[in-house]
Amino acid sequence: MADDNSIFIGGKPFMNYITGVVMQFTTRGTSEVVIKARGKFISRAVDVAEVARRRFLEDQVFVKEIKIGSEGFKNNEGRDVTVSNIEITLTKKA
Amino acid sequence: MADDNSIFIGGKPFMNYITGVVMQFTTRGTSEVVIKARGKFISRAVDVAEVARRRFLEDQVFVKEIKIGSEGFKNNEGRDVTVSNIEITLTKKA
Repeated sequence: MADDNSIFIGGKPFMNYITGVVMQFTTRGTSEVVIKARGKFISRAVDVAEVARRRFLEDQVFVKEIKIGSEGFKNNEGRDVTVSNIEITLTKKA
Repeated sequence: MADDNSIFIGGKPFMNYITGVVMQFTTRGTSEVVIKARGKFISRAVDVAEVARRRFLEDQVFVKEIKIGSEGFKNNEGRDVTVSNIEITLTKKA
């Protein structure tokens, strides 16, 4: 699936992400949105998926797949760190 | 599956949970462990699953299923709140 169907969760206001997800499905008419997050933002990604699914797109989308993984990168001090990530795929109901 | 195969993630030291997961598979010989968490501890549950899977039970277990959901309860002030949750099922490889 194309990368612009992904929404990466960070520290912006919560509703920004909800709007992002809802807009993808409604205005842009996409059939699938992937909500991605790393580290401490994983909890938030689950919140975004749940609030979008239950309150804003009720009966319109479902959780098709959830993947978790780990990725390594260098932090600000140049040290190798590993961080967990999540990808939650929301899909439009037929 | 029996409830005692569940590990509920909270604020205890991280390695307590890792030990808990590893012990279930090794000492107790169970074939499946469900890692559960709510709210902000969801990120931690993913970390526990990933560290257990990659570092302590490498090539021995895999992520069989991940479920997310929402549950309502009354907080300390008696207000109804909704919180997200996650359940990550790790299963022993055949």
